[in-house]
Parts: sequence; structure tokens; C-alpha cells
Amino acid sequence: MLDSIPLLAGIVAIIFAGILAYYVSKKPRGNKKMQEISDYIHKGALAFLKEEYKVISIFIVAVVAILLLMSYYTDLPWETSIAFIVGAIFSALAGNIGMRVATKTNARAAEASKKGIVNGLIVAFSSGAVMGLSVVGLGIIGVGLFYLVYGSRAAGILFGFGFGASSIALFARVGGGIYTKSADIGADLVGKIEAGIPEDDPRNPAVIADNVGDNVGDVAGMGADLFESYVDSIISGMSLGLILSYAYGQIYPMLIASLGIFSSIIAMIFVKAKNPYTALRNGLFGAATIFAIFSGVATYWLLKELNPFYAIIVGLIDGVIIGLSTEYYTSHQRKPARSIAEAAKTGAATNILTGMSVGMMSTLIPIISTAIAMVLAYEFASFYGIALAAIGMLSTLGISLATDCYGPVADNAAGISEMAGLGDEIRKRTEELDAVGNTTAAMGKGFAIGSAAITALALIFTFVKKAEELNVKMDISLTSPYLMAGLFIGAMLPFIFSALTLGAVGRAAEKMVNEVRRQFKEYKILEGKGKPDYEQCIRIATKGALREMILPSLLAVVVPIIIGIWKIEALVGLLAGATSTGFLLAIFLANAGGAWDNAKKYIEEGNLGGKGSFAHKAAVVGDTVGDPCKDTSGPSLNILIKLMSIVSLVFLPVFIKFIH
Amino acid sequence: MLDSIPLLAGIVAIIFAGILAYYVSKKPRGNKKMQEISDYIHKGALAFLKEEYKVISIFIVAVVAILLLMSYYTDLPWETSIAFIVGAIFSALAGNIGMRVATKTNARAAEASKKGIVNGLIVAFSSGAVMGLSVVGLGIIGVGLFYLVYGSRAAGILFGFGFGASSIALFARVGGGIYTKSADIGADLVGKIEAGIPEDDPRNPAVIADNVGDNVGDVAGMGADLFESYVDSIISGMSLGLILSYAYGQIYPMLIASLGIFSSIIAMIFVKAKNPYTALRNGLFGAATIFAIFSGVATYWLLKELNPFYAIIVGLIDGVIIGLSTEYYTSHQRKPARSIAEAAKTGAATNILTGMSVGMMSTLIPIISTAIAMVLAYEFASFYGIALAAIGMLSTLGISLATDCYGPVADNAAGISEMAGLGDEIRKRTEELDAVGNTTAAMGKGFAIGSAAITALALIFTFVKKAEELNVKMDISLTSPYLMAGLFIGAMLPFIFSALTLGAVGRAAEKMVNEVRRQFKEYKILEGKGKPDYEQCIRIATKGALREMILPSLLAVVVPIIIGIWKIEALVGLLAGATSTGFLLAIFLANAGGAWDNAKKYIEEGNLGGKGSFAHKAAVVGDTVGDPCKDTSGPSLNILIKLMSIVSLVFLPVFIKFIH
Repeated sequence: MLDSIPLLAGIVAIIFAGILAYYVSKKPRGNKKMQEISDYIHKGALAFLKEEYKVISIFIVAVVAILLLMSYYTDLPWETSIAFIVGAIFSALAGNIGMRVATKTNARAAEASKKGIVNGLIVAFSSGAVMGLSVVGLGIIGVGLFYLVYGSRAAGILFGFGFGASSIALFARVGGGIYTKSADIGADLVGKIEAGIPEDDPRNPAVIADNVGDNVGDVAGMGADLFESYVDSIISGMSLGLILSYAYGQIYPMLIASLGIFSSIIAMIFVKAKNPYTALRNGLFGAATIFAIFSGVATYWLLKELNPFYAIIVGLIDGVIIGLSTEYYTSHQRKPARSIAEAAKTGAATNILTGMSVGMMSTLIPIISTAIAMVLAYEFASFYGIALAAIGMLSTLGISLATDCYGPVADNAAGISEMAGLGDEIRKRTEELDAVGNTTAAMGKGFAIGSAAITALALIFTFVKKAEELNVKMDISLTSPYLMAGLFIGAMLPFIFSALTLGAVGRAAEKMVNEVRRQFKEYKILEGKGKPDYEQCIRIATKGALREMILPSLLAVVVPIIIGIWKIEALVGLLAGATSTGFLLAIFLANAGGAWDNAKKYIEEGNLGGKGSFAHKAAVVGDTVGDPCKDTSGPSLNILIKLMSIVSLVFLPVFIKFIH
Repeated sequence: MLDSIPLLAGIVAIIFAGILAYYVSKKPRGNKKMQEISDYIHKGALAFLKEEYKVISIFIVAVVAILLLMSYYTDLPWETSIAFIVGAIFSALAGNIGMRVATKTNARAAEASKKGIVNGLIVAFSSGAVMGLSVVGLGIIGVGLFYLVYGSRAAGILFGFGFGASSIALFARVGGGIYTKSADIGADLVGKIEAGIPEDDPRNPAVIADNVGDNVGDVAGMGADLFESYVDSIISGMSLGLILSYAYGQIYPMLIASLGIFSSIIAMIFVKAKNPYTALRNGLFGAATIFAIFSGVATYWLLKELNPFYAIIVGLIDGVIIGLSTEYYTSHQRKPARSIAEAAKTGAATNILTGMSVGMMSTLIPIISTAIAMVLAYEFASFYGIALAAIGMLSTLGISLATDCYGPVADNAAGISEMAGLGDEIRKRTEELDAVGNTTAAMGKGFAIGSAAITALALIFTFVKKAEELNVKMDISLTSPYLMAGLFIGAMLPFIFSALTLGAVGRAAEKMVNEVRRQFKEYKILEGKGKPDYEQCIRIATKGALREMILPSLLAVVVPIIIGIWKIEALVGLLAGATSTGFLLAIFLANAGGAWDNAKKYIEEGNLGGKGSFAHKAAVVGDTVGDPCKDTSGPSLNILIKLMSIVSLVFLPVFIKFIH
């Protein structure tokens, strides 16, 4: 009976997602203009996915070939290749579903806002919930199926599943991140700054690409990122539970995840409020509370002790603390973002410096909180406890991802209201929805980073324990100069990775800038004579993103393999170094970017001189600097640290071959 | 006989420094105006030092009290307090001598430039050499004296000496860095940007403070930083040589350092060239070559094997690679800085983003090179080899520090030429000297960071070996969650430290901006009616720097002690984490800052539109952002990583007490 609960939970999640998708699809799509814009965005997003899949499929085929070859020469189970393919397909499927629904909902959310802000909220949130439930549903179904088929061998084979999910996440995050910011910067630099037309003006040729980007980056990218964290945390829990011989060690992590799914669904159904922000927050905290009760009861009933449960709660609390800390450092109602706005009064340079300082300072709480969580979780249930903490943090992903993915839908709805000329009242409502979305998106980003870090930690410990189980002799004390060399190189990788992704956005944005300038000039759009060619901009963003994502992605896969073949001690150091600086840089980049963004918004609300003032111009510079930091480089680091650990786990039998 | 060679080398260095100081003092100081300005700078610098010493002496007294108390309750040798005081005094003395000579030489270098650029070079370089030789001379005399008095107990007691030197370095780097940038930004924002008067215009009330800052930050700060690296590397070499029972393990590191002093002096005397840059470079490489020959012969004669020598050479080469890499990434003649200048064409935001990307990418070579150096040095002579590599890198510090400290003197000379109105020809010559100084200063910065990193590594290994020698039971494998928690927190500290120092510069600069604005307005300086009050600006810079340096400095001392008392495993992780991210962030901040600076200079040479163009304005923003990065936060990290390790070594007996 216990064995099939995960599958059951997954199926319930998918059914509920289907119901919500049906519910959303029955909502009116608004007038013709709105439908037209929504269709543009929908088609643009799918066009990107299609091109992206082409690139990814080459990668998948290559990896499968390598895995099969390795299965022949080493102890790598051949089923790893199958798991890899299934993991990749499930991750892609979750992203695909989420994006299809999101891009079908944007106009519907705008239309629903005509009746009131809460109506808009419900439609936008429902579409986010489809994504959230698809991610957790497909995740647990995948893991649960392999467990049913392979039993105690499942945990080892499932590393391949995680690797498949990670690969998709990598391309989705890096490619999506480059896409969204090149389109955004291109649209803003030429449209807003050079031509002086407002944001989301339909005359801007890059405006649709910009809206596509929100979906590609924040829906598909975020979803794939968290799908990866979700399955990786469960897999590492199953693996450590088995290796360390905990009672119900393999099934317990999946049961806990299943309870999280049920809790999320219950909270979605019952939690309501008038104010959109309150509704979302109550939903999140409601789900966490229900989950805490469920898992406490289930743990005691199953294990007759509560230590694993405490480890789970530690992770859950850590997630909440990181989310709140992110909110504090980025919200325009708090001191940090306001101090950045203040600094804009003396110019762009002081605005940038203050933002950097705020971003760096914002690492304090998440790092200390996670360090404490790790130690406590370990005290409760050894390394298994650390994996359980990760599972705990991600347990309510169904609903928390829904609040994340609600953001881009609201953002799109606001854009469509503007472009379709729905009038001030509706635009204001959708913008309010968008503002709530920005806050939840910031919290979601912090949460994604935190869960990536603790998942990566769990994977590192899994790697070491697995290697010990396989009798690998290694000196992983800090006095090993190989480990220390690995630590240095690992700590460096997030810097190199960020340098590459920041550079990629710059290059891709430059092409977009030139294209928008060309269209303005050749088609005489601003003179009212010609029409913008949206599709050309979409093609440029797609092409740029796909070309630029290759190098950083290969880096993430190839470096751990090379180092692992050289010295396994160095690999352990590499993973620890990359996880620590990856965590730090990701928080720094995400929070600095979010704070610059909201400092600008604070000024635009009429403070410190308001729009068009000297301070505002300086704040726009900060916002533009922060954009690729928070939406491309920062989030991509989440994938980097998890992927390197899972690659190491998959290739462990290969490394062992090179030791002997 | 061997025992007294270090003292002999130190005395020779001091005598040679005295001769050079005498030589410089006999050079003409130029006209009355030049003397007046030089006196202002001299007095301002000494005023800062005096105030700084007041703050430091409180700190010294407090630390001595704590150390004595600890000696009473734990196994800490009571002589550690004496070593601490002597280390602090020697470091302060070296900085004081260097700054006195530098601020007495600036006008003389300008005056000498009237006869030709090489004449100016010789005078400025001689003053730098006084500093370089004082640092190595006092360093080796201090270490050598303790060795003569305490024999095999010296290495342990000398940790106190390193702690004393580190404490002075901390305040000198952090305080000096805040001073120089608050004055610089204050002078530039109001003078250059708001009032539109040129750099170094005598009407600017902050102009003297700005020139004082160059000396306080780049001479006294840099000198104290490298004094610390120099003595720490020798002390860790002596300590590891003793613990690991290497032949001549205690005296050999000092002998090698002594040979480096002789090599530096020989190179100073014999290396000449017409072009200033060639002269400096030949001097550096000449000294390194002579040192390599000397130390190879001496090693074989003494030890009958060459492995320790190879470790030394590995360090020497690593230093050269880091220096060249820094030059590549920051020079305005190379691709990275030019790509930043190109990006300025699309505005300040793209200029900033490209600079960030370049800075992050520039971590690649130094990290890989240092990781390889560490592994090779270990292969040659175990942990002792790593300390020897640090000593090798710092062996020619006498001459390399001379080329660093020549920079600010040349900078001041250019400022004095401008302020005293010496005419275009002389100003051009001094500016050329200044430009060469900028390149050598960039290389020197890279070198200072690299030597700090490898010294910190040597100290970490010393800490672990010392703890093992004292029978401390600890699990420092990466699977210790305490160690991992320490690693995370340690990796975070450089971010927090940089956030504090960046914020400090911002706050101190704001006060300066307000003061300059006030003077312009109240004294009607620009209307030609009143005179600027230089001293008020100097007071403000001094006060701001001293107040702002306290918090980050305490952090560096207190955190390792708290963590060490909690869990010694966590402390080991903390040191490793702080060293890796400290190294990375320091390179990132220094190189991004240097590259922004030179991208601006590239445009000012007439490229991409030249001065006053749109690109130039964007590049000025980048330069202003980069200034505190490269001159305050980046260099301060060097101290942080070394200081935390040496504090841990000093307090090790205390931590042991808390274990039992």
C-alpha cells in the first residue's frame, strides 16, 4: 500500500492540474486585439521551445550514447540511460504544460480583471497552479515509477533521472534567462530610453519578444529549476536513507513529498482572501502548516519517532526565513531598496555601489540560516536529515511554484492591457496584480536559490557516502591539497559561469538593439507609417539565446567529469566550493537585481523627484544592470550547483574505474 | 653563522634604504608653490597616521590584555604578547617610514622631471625602494631576532608577531582605503562633474585630501599588507619546517628570504633602461632571476637536494603569472578594457555589466595557477612546500614593492605639476610616469592578492598541523557538517566585509561631497573670491575613515574566535571558505575596478568619441563604481583572509581549552 502512495499523489496532482487548466480555458479571452497579442506571445514562446528542444535533443542523444558506452565498460547500470531520458522528458513536459497554460491565460487574466482584482488573481493563480502541480505531479510519478520497478536498485538508477531533469533545467534556465533579458534590454534601451515611448508600447518591435521572455524565463526556466530541486532532493533522500539503513529509508522521502502535494492542494482549495497579497501569503503558510501536521502524524505513525520529522521542519523553516529575507532586501517598502533609491540622488555610480553593498549584505541571513539548518538536520538524522531538510523545504512546492508562476502571467496581463488599450482602470488593476507578482517572484527566487543550495549539499553528502559504500579510498580532509585545489577551482566556477552568462546577455541584447533601431528607421514605425515585425525580434532572441547557452552549459557538465577523472578528492572539493560560492553569488545577484528594480519603482511612485528626475535616470541604470543579474546569471547558478553534483553521482562508477 | 644571516640581510636592507632616503632628500624640492603643496600632503598624511595610531593603540592594549589573560589560563606562551607588540610596532614603523619618504619625494620627482622623464623615474622609484627595503628589512629583523632569542620555541611565539603585523595592516588597509576613496569620490563628484573644473585643480577643497589618500591607501596600506604577507609566509614556513621535521626547517625559510633581499638590492643597483616601464620590468625580472640562481645554489649547498627549491620557484612563477594576468585584464591596450570601453557606447549600464563580466572572468588564470602551484609545491615538499611557495612568491618583495609605491609618488608628482602650474611639457612627463605607475600598481595589486591567498593557505595548513601536533581530535573531512557550516559562513564573510567597506566609502564620501559643496558655495571659491579650506576636508576624510574602519576590522578578529570556541572543525572550514571567496572577490573587485578605470582612460585618449562624449560619461560612471572596488574593498580582503588564519593560530591554545 505504502509503495503506491507516491504514484497516487502524483496522479491526484495531475488530475487537479487538468481541472484547473480546463477551468482557465473556459474563461473569456477578451476582445480581438487581446486575443491577437496573446496568440503572438503563445506562438513566440512555443517557437522558442521548439528550437530549444532541437538543441537539447542533440545533447540528449550524445549523453545517452556516452552513458551506454560507460555502462559497457564500468559498473554504471545501463538503466541509467533510460532514467536519464525519462527525467528529461518529464521535465520538458512539465515546463511545456506550464508555459502553454500561462501563455493561454495572460489575456484571460486581463479580461477577468475587468470584474475585479480578485477575479484576475484567481485566473492568473490557477494557471500558476497548473504549473506547480504538473511539476510536483510529474516529479513524484517519475520517481515513484522507478521505485516500483527497481525496488532497492531504484535510488542508484534514479541519479540518471535527476541528471535528465537537470539537463533540461540547465538549458531552460540559461537559454530562457538569456532570451528574456536580451529582449527586455533591447526593448527598453531603444524603445523607452532612445525613442521615449512607454513600456509595452505595441509600436516597439521587441515588445512581444519581451513578453515571451517573461514566460520563457520565469515560467519554463523557474519550473525546470524547481522540478530539478524537487526530484534531486527526493532521490538523495532515498539514496541516503538506503545507504545509512534508516527504517523505511527509501519510501519515507517519497511519502513526505506526497503529503506536501496533498497539503498544497488543500490550501489551494480552501484559502481565500480579498487582498491578493494576503491570499497568496495565507495560501503558502496554510499549506506549510497543514504539511507540518500531516508529516508529523505520519512520521510518528510510521517510524514511532520524530527525529526525521524535525529535520524536515528545519528545512521548511529555513525556506521561510530565506524567502522573508529576500523580501526584506528587495521590497520597495523596506530600507535596503530605499537606501539604493536615496543613493541615486548623487548619480548612477552611487546607486550601483549601494546596490552592490546591499546585495552582498543580503547573503548574511540565508547563509547563516542554511548553515544552522544543515547542522540541526544532521543532529536529528545524520546526512539523511540533510536530504530530508531539502525535501521539507520543497514539500509545498505545488503551491509555492504556483505563486511564482502567477507573476509572469500577471506581468503579461498588464502588458496586454496596455497594448490593447483597455483603459486606466483595468491597467491599474493588472499592474497591482503585477506588483504582487513581483514580490512573490522575489521570494520565489530566494526560495529557489535556498532549495538549490540545500539540495546540492544533500547530493554532495550522497556522493561521498555512495563512494564510501563502493569502497573508494579517498582523503577528503581539508588538508588534502587536491581537495583544496578542487575547492578553489569549484569556488571559481560560479564566477566564470556568471561572467559567461552576463556576457551572453550583452551580446544577444546588442543584436536586439540593432534590430529594433533598424525597424524604427526602415519601417518608419514611430512616424506611424509602418508596422513592427515582431517575429523577426522573436527569431533574433531565440537564436541568440540558443547560441549563447551552449558554452556555459557544457562547462557545467564537462568540468566535474574532468576533475573527477583526475582526482576524486578534488571533485569533492570542487562540489563544496561551487555550492558555497554558487549559493552566495546567486543571492547577491538576485537580491541586488531585485533591489535595484524596486528602488527604481519606488522613485517612479513619485518619491525623490519621481519619473524623469535625475535620480530616476540613475535608478534606470541600476535596474538595467540588475536585470541580467537577477534573471539570467543568478538563477542559472542554481542549476550549476545541482547539476555538477548529480553529474558526479552519475559518473561515479567511471571515476572509480580511473582510480583502479 | 647561518643563524645571523637573516639579521645581516635585514640590516643591509635598512642601511640601503637609509642611503636612498638620504639621496632623495638631497634632491631639490622645486619652487615655493610646489613645496607648499607637498607640505600640505605630507602634513595631512601624518595627521591621518597620528589619529589612526590613537585608535590602533586602544586596540593593541585591549588585545595585549586579552593575550596575557589567556596566557594565564591556557597554554598560550606569554611571550606572544611581546611578539604581538613588536610586530605591530615594526609594521607601523615600516609604513611610517615609507609614507614620510613618499610624501617628501612627490615634489622632488616633479622637479626632477624637468631634466627628463628618467630623472623623475629615478627619484620616484628611489622613494618606493625605501619603502620596499624597510618592509623586508624590518620583517626579517623581527623574525630573525625572535629566532635568535627563542630558538625552536620561536615559531610558536612568532604567531603573535604576525598577529601584530596583521592588526596594523588591517587598520591601514581598511582605514586607508576608505580615506582615499571618500576623498577621491568627493573631489571628483563635486569638482569634476558638478563644477566642471579639472582633476587636481587647486580650487577644489578636497584635492589635497585626495592626494593624501593616494599615500595613505597605496603606500601605507599596500606596505602594511605586504609586510603581513611577508612575515606570515616566513613564520608559517618556519613552523611547518619544524613540525614536519625538515632539515634546517626553521632557518631555511629565513635564509631564502634573505637571499631575496640581496637579489632585490643587486637588481636595484644594476638594472637601468631608458624607458621607465622597461626599467621597472627589467628590475623585477632581473631580481627574480638572480634570486632563482642564488636560492638554487644555496639550497643544494645546504640540503643536498632541490625539492624545496622547486617549491619556491613554483611560487615565484605563480606570482609572475598572476601579475601578468592582472595586467592583461586591466591594461587599456588589451581587449578586456577595450571591450568595456566599447560597451560604454550603449550607456553606463552596459559599461557596468561588461566590467562585471570581465572582472569575474579574470579570476580564471590566478585561481587555476594558484591551485596548480599549491599541488606542485605539495608534491615537492608537502605542506612545508606550500609555505615555501609563498616565500618564493614574496622573495623579491623589496623591489616589487618599490615599483608599487613608486606609483602614488608619480601620481602625486603629476598632481603637484598641475596644481603648481609647471606647464604642459612637465605635466606630460609626470603623467607618463603616472601611467607607468598605474600599470605597475595594477600588477602589484594582483601580486598582493595572490601572495595573500597562498600565505593564507600556508597558514591554514600550519593551523591544522599545529593542532594535530597538540593532539587535538578533529574531523576535518568535508563530510563534517560543522566543517561545511563553517565553510559556508567563511565563504560568506568576504561578501559581508565588502558590503561593509563599500557602504563605508559611500557614507564617508557623502560627507565629503557635502563639505566641498558647502565650501564652494559659502567661500565663493569658483567665483575667485575665497580660498578652499583643505584641512577641513582632510579632517573629514580622517574622521570618516577611522569611524568606518572599526566594524569590519572587529569582524575579522572576532568571528574566527567565536567559531573556534564553538567547533574547531567549523573554524577550519571557515578559514578555507573565507580564503577561497576572499581570493575570488578580491581579484574580481580589483580587476573590474582597474579595467573600468583604464576603459575610461582609453576613451580619454580620444577613442570612441573622446572626452565629453556619451561613451565617456558612461565610462566615468564605471570608473567611479570601480574606484572603491579596486582601492578599498578588494585590497582589504587580502588582510581579512590572512588575519583570520593568524588569529586562529594565536588562539589555538584557547580553542583547545574549550574542547577539553
